[in-house]
Amino acid sequence: MYRAAVMAAPGKSLEVRDYPAPEMEAGSVLLDTIFSEVCGTDVHLHHGRLAGVPYPIIPGHVSVGRISILSGEVLDVEGEALREGDVVAFLDVHESCGSCWYCLVAKASTRCPSRRVYGITYSADEGLLGGWSEAIYLKPGVKVIKLPQGLTPERYIAAGCGLPTATHALERAEVQLGDAIVVQGCGPVGLNAAVMAQLSGATQVIVVGAPKKRLEMARAVGADHIVDIEEHGPDERIAMVRELTHGRGADVTIEATGNPAAVAEGMRMTRDNGRYVVVGQYTDAGSVEINPHWDINRKHLEIRGCWGSDFSHFYRGIKVLAKHGDRFPYEGFITRVYGLEELDEALADVEKLRVVKAVVQP
Amino acid sequence: MYRAAVMAAPGKSLEVRDYPAPEMEAGSVLLDTIFSEVCGTDVHLHHGRLAGVPYPIIPGHVSVGRISILSGEVLDVEGEALREGDVVAFLDVHESCGSCWYCLVAKASTRCPSRRVYGITYSADEGLLGGWSEAIYLKPGVKVIKLPQGLTPERYIAAGCGLPTATHALERAEVQLGDAIVVQGCGPVGLNAAVMAQLSGATQVIVVGAPKKRLEMARAVGADHIVDIEEHGPDERIAMVRELTHGRGADVTIEATGNPAAVAEGMRMTRDNGRYVVVGQYTDAGSVEINPHWDINRKHLEIRGCWGSDFSHFYRGIKVLAKHGDRFPYEGFITRVYGLEELDEALADVEKLRVVKAVVQP
Amino acid sequence: MYRAAVMAAPGKSLEVRDYPAPEMEAGSVLLDTIFSEVCGTDVHLHHGRLAGVPYPIIPGHVSVGRISILSGEVLDVEGEALREGDVVAFLDVHESCGSCWYCLVAKASTRCPSRRVYGITYSADEGLLGGWSEAIYLKPGVKVIKLPQGLTPERYIAAGCGLPTATHALERAEVQLGDAIVVQGCGPVGLNAAVMAQLSGATQVIVVGAPKKRLEMARAVGADHIVDIEEHGPDERIAMVRELTHGRGADVTIEATGNPAAVAEGMRMTRDNGRYVVVGQYTDAGSVEINPHWDINRKHLEIRGCWGSDFSHFYRGIKVLAKHGDRFPYEGFITRVYGLEELDEALADVEKLRVVKAVVQP
Amino acid sequence: MYRAAVMAAPGKSLEVRDYPAPEMEAGSVLLDTIFSEVCGTDVHLHHGRLAGVPYPIIPGHVSVGRISILSGEVLDVEGEALREGDVVAFLDVHESCGSCWYCLVAKASTRCPSRRVYGITYSADEGLLGGWSEAIYLKPGVKVIKLPQGLTPERYIAAGCGLPTATHALERAEVQLGDAIVVQGCGPVGLNAAVMAQLSGATQVIVVGAPKKRLEMARAVGADHIVDIEEHGPDERIAMVRELTHGRGADVTIEATGNPAAVAEGMRMTRDNGRYVVVGQYTDAGSVEINPHWDINRKHLEIRGCWGSDFSHFYRGIKVLAKHGDRFPYEGFITRVYGLEELDEALADVEKLRVVKAVVQP
Repeated sequence: MYRAAVMAAPGKSLEVRDYPAPEMEAGSVLLDTIFSEVCGTDVHLHHGRLAGVPYPIIPGHVSVGRISILSGEVLDVEGEALREGDVVAFLDVHESCGSCWYCLVAKASTRCPSRRVYGITYSADEGLLGGWSEAIYLKPGVKVIKLPQGLTPERYIAAGCGLPTATHALERAEVQLGDAIVVQGCGPVGLNAAVMAQLSGATQVIVVGAPKKRLEMARAVGADHIVDIEEHGPDERIAMVRELTHGRGADVTIEATGNPAAVAEGMRMTRDNGRYVVVGQYTDAGSVEINPHWDINRKHLEIRGCWGSDFSHFYRGIKVLAKHGDRFPYEGFITRVYGLEELDEALADVEKLRVVKAVVQP
Repeated sequence: MYRAAVMAAPGKSLEVRDYPAPEMEAGSVLLDTIFSEVCGTDVHLHHGRLAGVPYPIIPGHVSVGRISILSGEVLDVEGEALREGDVVAFLDVHESCGSCWYCLVAKASTRCPSRRVYGITYSADEGLLGGWSEAIYLKPGVKVIKLPQGLTPERYIAAGCGLPTATHALERAEVQLGDAIVVQGCGPVGLNAAVMAQLSGATQVIVVGAPKKRLEMARAVGADHIVDIEEHGPDERIAMVRELTHGRGADVTIEATGNPAAVAEGMRMTRDNGRYVVVGQYTDAGSVEINPHWDINRKHLEIRGCWGSDFSHFYRGIKVLAKHGDRFPYEGFITRVYGLEELDEALADVEKLRVVKAVVQP
Repeated sequence: MYRAAVMAAPGKSLEVRDYPAPEMEAGSVLLDTIFSEVCGTDVHLHHGRLAGVPYPIIPGHVSVGRISILSGEVLDVEGEALREGDVVAFLDVHESCGSCWYCLVAKASTRCPSRRVYGITYSADEGLLGGWSEAIYLKPGVKVIKLPQGLTPERYIAAGCGLPTATHALERAEVQLGDAIVVQGCGPVGLNAAVMAQLSGATQVIVVGAPKKRLEMARAVGADHIVDIEEHGPDERIAMVRELTHGRGADVTIEATGNPAAVAEGMRMTRDNGRYVVVGQYTDAGSVEINPHWDINRKHLEIRGCWGSDFSHFYRGIKVLAKHGDRFPYEGFITRVYGLEELDEALADVEKLRVVKAVVQP
Repeated sequence: MYRAAVMAAPGKSLEVRDYPAPEMEAGSVLLDTIFSEVCGTDVHLHHGRLAGVPYPIIPGHVSVGRISILSGEVLDVEGEALREGDVVAFLDVHESCGSCWYCLVAKASTRCPSRRVYGITYSADEGLLGGWSEAIYLKPGVKVIKLPQGLTPERYIAAGCGLPTATHALERAEVQLGDAIVVQGCGPVGLNAAVMAQLSGATQVIVVGAPKKRLEMARAVGADHIVDIEEHGPDERIAMVRELTHGRGADVTIEATGNPAAVAEGMRMTRDNGRYVVVGQYTDAGSVEINPHWDINRKHLEIRGCWGSDFSHFYRGIKVLAKHGDRFPYEGFITRVYGLEELDEALADVEKLRVVKAVVQP
């Protein structure tokens, strides 16, 4: 039997339930969970803000574990066979169909209607398909990467689900050597984006956010400037960014806040003919007023939404973390580690921004 | 002496004034004006809606004329010498500096602060620098193109300033073979965009606009479907576009309306991972509410502002018009030709949308 | 029983064999073949120039047929159910895995090692998996498109396998409005490329090739200029292209010849900072000498290989053909229609360039 | 009077000549030279391998100096006024016209026919227009950048002309986070490219070259692997690269050798659907045989020539060097510093690869 924390319905306390060992389909893998995480998405899940979630669910979309059972030979994307005892991460996104119009014509697999996500759109009734559990069942075909030498489970989970998200955002950002970048937000996605921006050739990274503890972490990962939104109003913030960029604004701005108002502000923080990547508006938090003349047309601005991530972002993110991760104090993101019984508290801590990163150790 | 229609100040009636023949600097060209045009920008100028306009001005930014005087040898961009009697068009944009940060680093010459525009940001006190005049003085360095064989002045002015604007918009649109395109607006820019979309590989062009006369012209230039905004409300229009596109929305939408509300609507008319080009928000006509989650982030949408045009758009637009123009009833855009004394009337007709295209024949 | 023409081994005469009706797997489709084609690839297959071909095979990769049997509900990519009697085309490429490094990280499904192709890499022992047959068995998951209204089977097969190939080549070409394009080669791929170039915004299309009959067809589909390689040597041809393009060379050149020497020539026909798409070097026909200084570096040239095609090219090609095909005399490509017993003759006719397009009517 | 080293004609010994102080045009700047450099291009100049060089010349295209005279107010691209005593670098490329077809339509200013280069295409008879001189005359309009705080003249000249060249090459390379990069060549351009690749997001950099001293420097700047061409033949080198990249080859290869044979090899070191940037073929060193089927078409390879550099590369290169330069032992590139009388020796040392970088201190 394995213990797992179950979110039975929006608003209800988490319950720890026992699940039997799964029946292993051919090509499936069972993990002993080492770490999972609690992120803003889990708070949204707990408030019922996402449509189509099949409660009860076992949350936890990004996790790391040790292979306990392999049902037959399972290869990774490089063609290497996985082995029992390997410490691995896996892509939470599964079942993109490869056959629909979005997969085949638009080549936008993150918009595939068949796509499902561990810890979010699988039900607890379907099995151990989330990370807040002693074991995670990886269905046949789930994409697995063995952590490269030198990349610890701690560092991987510290980067967490912000890692592929930020990798995707930076792909959309097309940063050039010497660019000045604004990152709006200093939660897990914003902090990862601040790191990835530096690794993509930026020479100036300005992080705009709050609270102080997170801004300190932004500074610690190399942000050249921080702008504290608790101290400066929107107009002042825009003015500060412009002053830091010869009056022009950032070459590229990356939004990672979840706050609709940030979108108008971000447009104004970006220079004419710059690029603005919107990655943080994961749920519907309302509207914002923009002025299409000043904010888009006259600026000759390019704005790119960025939804989800695919295997390439997961794969590239891990390569980057393994190679360059030790230059950044990732482990410092982990404010506290929670057991399965403490997850109501973890959700509250994440919601109140009392932690940078809440990690689950089942 | 040459007669020119002068806009002395916002809101004042046009006056016809006499100007002496200009002193010809080395490398300058004098044109006998064949046609100029009255476009929406001129209405904005007349209402004083553009900042930094040095009234009094001679309006008329896009024009066609016959060379009456050449001051020394003047070459076109292909290295061919111009001759007296040549029928030519010229790029209204002049004096982009080639030395500033925007010209050199951003490579965004339409955002160069030194950029000036015939008929808009040159004063009548500086000379015959607008098209509502019997003669136009082309300063040294103004870029001139001789109309290619088979391209009549009528067709050129019918396409008018919408031609380079739409050429630029389509460059930003990156249409692929087989795309479904929505064009919002059926004024001169929208109609040109509808043509250019077809010439860029689109297989379905849907024009959304009003009034009926302009929509008929959209149909005449090949729009597959028209959506009359006087008959259908915004939600219905979005639903109509989706129904025409297998429920997805357009691959690419091009906004050419000037109405801020169109921007939210256009986002919703575009499919997930599609592209939205905003080219019509030439003046500040107010704000619009958007929902960043649904309209940008979750859609994985790409939005591109498109400001002004540069020589390449002018050059490419003329090539396309010369080659393919006879497949489209461009001359039908010209609803009425006005003399220099009739330009108050012309401005009113343009503003009230009583004409598709108002042409000036000085 | 169904009759099919079988290529038992390289160099051997085609044999017509009888095959039993296939057992229909769930989701499979059986077609009564209307047309298939004989193309240069089939000549290569007959000479044994492609590696990994599992002879005996039933050739014929691009075909059109009428659905005779549907095993359960089969949907097209738009979600519409197919019906018996529908006239359909199908993507010959099948079994791209969606799971390998090339599919997932490089996003280059045409380089997926699992990819197989009807009429080329399926064996006749596996079933009716080629078009030179009275019936074609479409395995579950083969992508099917119902021919749109107005697109006849004749026109579809006249465009043939050159249609998706040229669509892909033009995607790689990124033609801009007003570009001058050289197409090297006037076989089926070259002719389709000449059409697609026009539909992508080119204003000048120069076709370089032979023999005369094919060049006439190039002229018939709208080439502005033709250069006969039987009359002009390589240096002269380059000079001719330059003379037609203000001394610069083409903005974009598309190679569709299969002759290695054409590649050096094509580089020299392209302008500085132009783009060169190499799509015709489908088999190893030897080497060519290039000068990297003059041909690549100093020219600031961009060269793009183009291998195979995927569903998006098949889908877009059909949309374009349905919309714009009637402006081009596609049916004129079909020089002769062959029965199953005449395919040795057809192969010889294709090899000797005695036909533009050889069509098979089983 | 100022002393300058003059290359009077190809093959002749350098002569030190005296020049009078220049007459300062409005907007011009005079520099006291701190450092200039001797690079491979200077060897080519000395052998007369470049066309159109107006001997006698004062070589030295990339230099750093202190402003001794300012003729009026001169602003940098950020709008800041330069001052006497400022330590500055300047863009050697000057007089790109901004008016020709290449500047305006192709937007390829490095192919502008009017473009001239300090130390290469200006004659000594025109003035102090090269860096091997006690003073350098910057004509009005020459683009100047004040070295940012913390960037020493030593480090700037150590990076030298390879800095903008590599910045341009990396722009063409479009490296993605997590890419594996091969750099062919470990001269100044190759070493800079190895640095810039890491700063652009690569997680694996393989440098292929010789001699040992330069390979050690490649290792010192962070190359993960080196391949010594004096120890391994071409096929073995290709095999080594493939073995380091899961059998696939590099995601991106950057050629910086000047050896035509490297181009065929580089194609084969690059993975299918990868990108190959050819930047080192600066002079005509002969031809190379390639196989268009295997090397381009079947590989779906993208090859990009990269010629010269423009202001943006100069500007971005300096920003990157100022921000990240201290992570790399740039100063170690400087093997020896030469006086004006020692430049024959310097040319010989560069040609024989006895030095990594030869610096001139007039």
